[in-house]
Amino acid sequence: MTFTAPNNGSPEPGQSREELETPVALVDLETMEANMSEFASFAREHDVALRSHVKTHKSPVLARRQEALSGNEGIICQTLHEAEVMAEYGLSDIYLSYMVVTRSKLDRLVRLSESIDSFATTVDCPGNIEPLQEAGARHGRSIDTVLELDIGLNRVGVEPGEKALELARSIVEAENLNFAGVMAYEGHINTLADSEGDYERRCLEAMDSVEAMVERLEGDGIPVDGVKVGSTGTSRYSGKHPVVTEINPGMYPFNDANVLSWNGPVEETDCALTMLTTVISKPTDERVVVDAGSKAMSFDLDCDPIPNGRDDIAYRNASEEHGWIDIGGTDQSIEVGDRLEFIVPHVCTTINLHERVVGMRDGLVEDVWTVRA
Amino acid sequence: MTFTAPNNGSPEPGQSREELETPVALVDLETMEANMSEFASFAREHDVALRSHVKTHKSPVLARRQEALSGNEGIICQTLHEAEVMAEYGLSDIYLSYMVVTRSKLDRLVRLSESIDSFATTVDCPGNIEPLQEAGARHGRSIDTVLELDIGLNRVGVEPGEKALELARSIVEAENLNFAGVMAYEGHINTLADSEGDYERRCLEAMDSVEAMVERLEGDGIPVDGVKVGSTGTSRYSGKHPVVTEINPGMYPFNDANVLSWNGPVEETDCALTMLTTVISKPTDERVVVDAGSKAMSFDLDCDPIPNGRDDIAYRNASEEHGWIDIGGTDQSIEVGDRLEFIVPHVCTTINLHERVVGMRDGLVEDVWTVRA
Repeated sequence: MTFTAPNNGSPEPGQSREELETPVALVDLETMEANMSEFASFAREHDVALRSHVKTHKSPVLARRQEALSGNEGIICQTLHEAEVMAEYGLSDIYLSYMVVTRSKLDRLVRLSESIDSFATTVDCPGNIEPLQEAGARHGRSIDTVLELDIGLNRVGVEPGEKALELARSIVEAENLNFAGVMAYEGHINTLADSEGDYERRCLEAMDSVEAMVERLEGDGIPVDGVKVGSTGTSRYSGKHPVVTEINPGMYPFNDANVLSWNGPVEETDCALTMLTTVISKPTDERVVVDAGSKAMSFDLDCDPIPNGRDDIAYRNASEEHGWIDIGGTDQSIEVGDRLEFIVPHVCTTINLHERVVGMRDGLVEDVWTVRA
Repeated sequence: MTFTAPNNGSPEPGQSREELETPVALVDLETMEANMSEFASFAREHDVALRSHVKTHKSPVLARRQEALSGNEGIICQTLHEAEVMAEYGLSDIYLSYMVVTRSKLDRLVRLSESIDSFATTVDCPGNIEPLQEAGARHGRSIDTVLELDIGLNRVGVEPGEKALELARSIVEAENLNFAGVMAYEGHINTLADSEGDYERRCLEAMDSVEAMVERLEGDGIPVDGVKVGSTGTSRYSGKHPVVTEINPGMYPFNDANVLSWNGPVEETDCALTMLTTVISKPTDERVVVDAGSKAMSFDLDCDPIPNGRDDIAYRNASEEHGWIDIGGTDQSIEVGDRLEFIVPHVCTTINLHERVVGMRDGLVEDVWTVRA
């Protein structure tokens, strides 16, 4: 006997919220569009480019929408494969904000750079500059190369100073590399600032350190054509600094519980992406269990899912396919089969768990985006 | 201009470890086979069935290997879609240890139950018994139905006692349901026990509570044909109790940092699955960064990745595509391009992030399993 696994709930345009299988990642299109427009307006107002980070959604369709809203200023990717998938779907101006170091991937990187209008990649130490130069030489290509500065996150990037200057010189001197400016990721400020004023002060101070490095490079005869910075939380402050030419936020179309935990202007009603779940069990009067745990929502950050638009219940705990919901504080009936919707802890790693994201307008499916990369 | 995204590192049999693109989930086949055999031997010795949980790997090929080793005693799945995919690939004895409640999924469940040799599902409250009975009636089918008991995890399941008896009666009385025994998940003991002796004592005590419930059901004229229990940590103790007929561990072929944090007999050399990574940056003499963060390894539990076979370096922090590695304590050279391998924090949610798992023997790829469900 043979059996064919049926469609596991692929939604189609026109379906209602009630017809969707769960768990499913929904996007409120009005909220997403407002979030996208807000960042595009900010960028125009402050005369910075908005190059959106597509690692959040990995959807070429959304990447193109972001590009169009921003005046076609390109996209940013976090893995080579993401960049390749975006290029396959027609995106032609890609910055890869990540170091590629192995020979096979460097060969892919050079082929990618040949196939689109504009491509740049990232380095921060001799160990990744040398293999990139070798790959350029191997293929007889010149590769746009951005130097990543570490301005406080202590992850990748070179600290501003003498070592950064030396690295910039080595990029300039490398025959097959073209020095294409600097990037600095000030994401650590998101969890440090205690008010919007403090946020702005810390971001502008961080940008001062970038500016000092840019001046040092230019004083050494190395023109810095671009300064890329930003995260969803910090871009709206860092982008006001005159040294910045381009902001690179990623999760701003959606927002999540993590962004809400910072002391910025984002509110629950700005969260466009939610996880729709179904109550599958009601073991006690104080607890129901929904069908979305750590295989439907990512718990990599220290945030819980937030019940969307209600504060009478709480998501207490997750296992792989279960979410424990405390209903002890509500006077509304919640029964098996009911739907509960949650703002997710971390939208970037949550979308990564799904094959598709469903765009909703007026309670109906309008778009279904495949998570491609 | 058109561009086709190349193969993103699909490994092929015969390739060496050095040829693999990273990050990639590797399985040491000798260790995996030893782990599988150990549980199969335990089950034979203690005369319990070993029905393995395939939610860990979602691979029909591995599911069949587990079945064969255990004497064809079936598999256990945690989502309907997993069960459907396993049935599509020829698995014909499936227990779904999860409540299905919506009409569309219940229709799928009944079709699945018709298409394979043996199928059972799970309930724990009137809210999921009623729709299951309705689905059976709608299709004129009788559905094997297991009652889940909550013996301490406080997730799903009914507490042993009067309420459990009433639910069992309602299953027996439901025209289209066939009462097929009880299951109880004692996974909470994994984090409570402080020694192997304490582990065994707690597990056997928990099984006493299951036995009392079984006696109460049988005293009420409800024969209990099967008692399913177990997790990787607890099965080897719970399975010694005479009331248990079947153990359902999942991650035992692989193990992970989470299992190592318990006070059982598992050691680092029992961990078959590791994440192979590449150093992409060396920002300081104290820190390198590898290409495996929270999109390659799941951080849903409070465990860090463990460097495989070495204690001179430590995985300190993760972002989506980055892992911060502390190399301050090693006297070995670690440079960009080097490979570092880690025991993952939680294997079940980590495999869920990947499209494939690579089986290695003697440093060469032997098998590539697709993560199908």
